[in-house]
Amino acid sequence: MKLQLALDLVNIQEAKELIREVEEHIDIIEIGTPVIKIEGLKAVTEIKEAFPNLLVLADLKTMDAAAYEVQKASEAKADIVTVLGVAEDESIKGAVAEAKKQGKQVLVDLIAVKDIETRAKELDAFGVDYICVHTGYDLQAVGKNSFADLQTIKGVVKHAKTAIAGGIKLETLPEVISVKPDLVIVGGGIANQDDKKAVAAKMQAMIQQR
Amino acid sequence: MKLQLALDLVNIQEAKELIREVEEHIDIIEIGTPVIKIEGLKAVTEIKEAFPNLLVLADLKTMDAAAYEVQKASEAKADIVTVLGVAEDESIKGAVAEAKKQGKQVLVDLIAVKDIETRAKELDAFGVDYICVHTGYDLQAVGKNSFADLQTIKGVVKHAKTAIAGGIKLETLPEVISVKPDLVIVGGGIANQDDKKAVAAKMQAMIQQR
Repeated sequence: MKLQLALDLVNIQEAKELIREVEEHIDIIEIGTPVIKIEGLKAVTEIKEAFPNLLVLADLKTMDAAAYEVQKASEAKADIVTVLGVAEDESIKGAVAEAKKQGKQVLVDLIAVKDIETRAKELDAFGVDYICVHTGYDLQAVGKNSFADLQTIKGVVKHAKTAIAGGIKLETLPEVISVKPDLVIVGGGIANQDDKKAVAAKMQAMIQQR
Repeated sequence: MKLQLALDLVNIQEAKELIREVEEHIDIIEIGTPVIKIEGLKAVTEIKEAFPNLLVLADLKTMDAAAYEVQKASEAKADIVTVLGVAEDESIKGAVAEAKKQGKQVLVDLIAVKDIETRAKELDAFGVDYICVHTGYDLQAVGKNSFADLQTIKGVVKHAKTAIAGGIKLETLPEVISVKPDLVIVGGGIANQDDKKAVAAKMQAMIQQR
């Protein structure tokens, strides 16, 4: 089980300071969608160059022109690129083919997918690397989470790794870990805490016990 | 009926040259999704500052954190921001509320929406400014278009303006115009032609007859 820190800091300097504080406790650093839209893919390149030992995920949430976006993220030194599960099958397949060509990985984000079980099975057959249940900001704001969805995809996904994102905190991590995802994605649960390093270290310890 | 030119040029200088060539024949200039992801929102700001008399649409294809993305695009001087029709209702409503606050407009892109008719009715009730049928690159590549979808939404949308995008060329424009959308979005149909200005002028003339 791996730990990913989702970064929403637009200021690259502040982002680097945060990562430096927690880097020994995380496996993957995520450059968030709004960061990429505001700053461009250079945000991905700068973080990867500063932290070559961490995997960097570019949260592109690709919806179309998928092979092109994966190619551009790959050129920007991303290791993993996200594609939306609600995208057309052709787009998902195009992203997977381009990622394989570039030696990169695809994480499909199930945000706003209505039939999680059916879509997860289809995505698994397309050969994606990760399938991620995700309650976005706008639904977290009305009290939703993705713990039940993680159970659902764990029951049907045979090949891909499973991931979960959206509002996970130290207090809710045990419930998440009990379902045994391959990847746990945490944003504010680390980044908005007073002692970020201590929280990241505790999360890492809990995750490594599984 | 208005004409929008969708720009996929990452090089801002080349983009400006293209716009200068056709600006008197178009109403709205679209900064494409990959351009924003590669260059950041500064691409929107630079084009708006160079062409203050054109409306600028930022094709963010927002999926989550919608109010925040609309706010940032607004700060970057976009006049219109796109949100995905497959996004959660909470996201669409958040985008509409923020756009109203900022004096901007929201175009909802129906790309990959399965039940176009039902979703168009819902979006119309949410108070979005434009509802756009759209066959993306990855489905254009397998021969699809959105002409029938435009008929469908014209039959149910009462308040929002209607738009169509995806592979429209001079030869197919009459068929599109016959359905009377409020906005026609053209990319390669202008940008990839030898005489861009002549094609844009012809399209404008055809559109203004309606």
